[in-house]
Amino acid sequence: MTVAAIGAEDLARLRLLAAPGLAAPVVRSLERTLGRPVEQVGEDPAVPDGPYAYVGATLPEALRGDGLLWFHSVNAGTDALLDAGPWPPGALLTRTVGRMGERIAQYVLAWVLAGCQSVPEFAAQQGRAEWRRIPSELVSGQTAVVHGTGRIGSAVAGLLRACGIRTVGVARTPREAPPGFDATAGRDEPVAARWVVSALPLTGATRGYFGAERFAAMGGAAFINVGRGATVDLVALEAALHAGTVGSAVLDVLPEEPAAPGDLCWRLPRTVVTSHSAGITADEDIVADFAECLRELVAGRVPALAVDPARGY
Amino acid sequence: MTVAAIGAEDLARLRLLAAPGLAAPVVRSLERTLGRPVEQVGEDPAVPDGPYAYVGATLPEALRGDGLLWFHSVNAGTDALLDAGPWPPGALLTRTVGRMGERIAQYVLAWVLAGCQSVPEFAAQQGRAEWRRIPSELVSGQTAVVHGTGRIGSAVAGLLRACGIRTVGVARTPREAPPGFDATAGRDEPVAARWVVSALPLTGATRGYFGAERFAAMGGAAFINVGRGATVDLVALEAALHAGTVGSAVLDVLPEEPAAPGDLCWRLPRTVVTSHSAGITADEDIVADFAECLRELVAGRVPALAVDPARGY
Repeated sequence: MTVAAIGAEDLARLRLLAAPGLAAPVVRSLERTLGRPVEQVGEDPAVPDGPYAYVGATLPEALRGDGLLWFHSVNAGTDALLDAGPWPPGALLTRTVGRMGERIAQYVLAWVLAGCQSVPEFAAQQGRAEWRRIPSELVSGQTAVVHGTGRIGSAVAGLLRACGIRTVGVARTPREAPPGFDATAGRDEPVAARWVVSALPLTGATRGYFGAERFAAMGGAAFINVGRGATVDLVALEAALHAGTVGSAVLDVLPEEPAAPGDLCWRLPRTVVTSHSAGITADEDIVADFAECLRELVAGRVPALAVDPARGY
Repeated sequence: MTVAAIGAEDLARLRLLAAPGLAAPVVRSLERTLGRPVEQVGEDPAVPDGPYAYVGATLPEALRGDGLLWFHSVNAGTDALLDAGPWPPGALLTRTVGRMGERIAQYVLAWVLAGCQSVPEFAAQQGRAEWRRIPSELVSGQTAVVHGTGRIGSAVAGLLRACGIRTVGVARTPREAPPGFDATAGRDEPVAARWVVSALPLTGATRGYFGAERFAAMGGAAFINVGRGATVDLVALEAALHAGTVGSAVLDVLPEEPAAPGDLCWRLPRTVVTSHSAGITADEDIVADFAECLRELVAGRVPALAVDPARGY
């Protein structure tokens, strides 16, 4: 099966239905995007007259009919949606990918600058009514090593570089510097750095990748993990933080999530855990990606965010 | 009196003396910069043979002789230094200005991103061993209004803009956008913004500039003050924070510094005071500005950071 665009005539008379769980500001933004009212349906909606589109996470049984021309998923993954039943033939499926690279890059820069500007320390001083100057650290001229040089790693490096940080990408095979990087290095090549960022996916080769040996070689750098939790040996990280070979840590991901109150991660010194929040898909992403799909449909094209229901991606 | 460069021959045999209070890493960096040993003197130094340069805050009496060819001040202000006694005729005086624009810009971006990424909230969750996702806010597409479009304001705007923030400069007379700004607005022109930054100097026209009326018009924006404390009416800010017309505040400067433990600033809701730390001159600035002066002297020029002792600037 291939993916088809929607004809101009259908597009002009399309009714847009929104899932019951969709937040009111999202519904209002969708209305502004579409330029006409959006009908937020209940848990058990009636079958609409005429062609309709639907924005939501799951597709109600009643709406699996011929009238469904377009389903826009609020999630990036559509496997659960497609597993729930046969996809209505001919219905376009698009998804929300959001601005994950940009979002994670801003997350990393936020924690880099928070470290240089003592943001948590000043917030704590405020609570104690304490006036005490803390010198800041300029990021310009510092070095950040980024493990993983794909889409996310490149976005992170590009933003750090815009603030004058030298960026070194670590890839399996050292090659020409990908976008955002000043240089590349091999996995076991020592690079003196103020920051070590991981944007690694979890594969057979990256499980436990950050272990005792790699942490021992970090020379006091701050470690930021926006990749996958199981790439890190938390016990080895604990030892490195105590030894000072890792200066501090910001962990968005953990080997086991959510972390229980007794988890080791809460007892790590100079560490902050951010509860897998760096790459969250936000309400504004749903609207932005819907708007982008709509623009492409109006132009008579199949949206780049379309999923082939037969293949699942 | 005019300011003269130092001859190549003198420069080649110049001994460099460092004040007793200078930190060891600074002395080592000066040695690397100069390419020869630096002599750190005591409180009551002997007069050296031959020509010498001195790096410090004050000039010891014994060193006010003919041999002093160059004094590099670790501070930006040289008024106290020059008031302490007649300046040795012919001795070059240079000063450390540091990278104040860049430093303050990184301070502002740090607090902007800390707000969007909930840095203080995550640090607090870490203390409570609490796993809770907090959605982030993308800065790209947000608007920052910057009051004061001089060197500091421009540096702030330029960095915010590099992260995709739209920057509007507020100046006494609206004019063509200065470097770093997308647009300008008049002082009382309403501009919807996520951030309001002040980099205003203190003059007759800016004392109490941020008062009840201006805060009431901010529409919930976060307020960041890196200018001067007395430009803000703290009682009016307190009311605005309670009313919600100011969403949050980061104050580097206050009408009275240092703030006593009972000061109003510590009781302001959603506020952090950073103890006048945004533009601190750091050890690395001393070395960087010394190195820049040395480069110019080697090239036979009078350094741009030279002060005319007769005029005091």
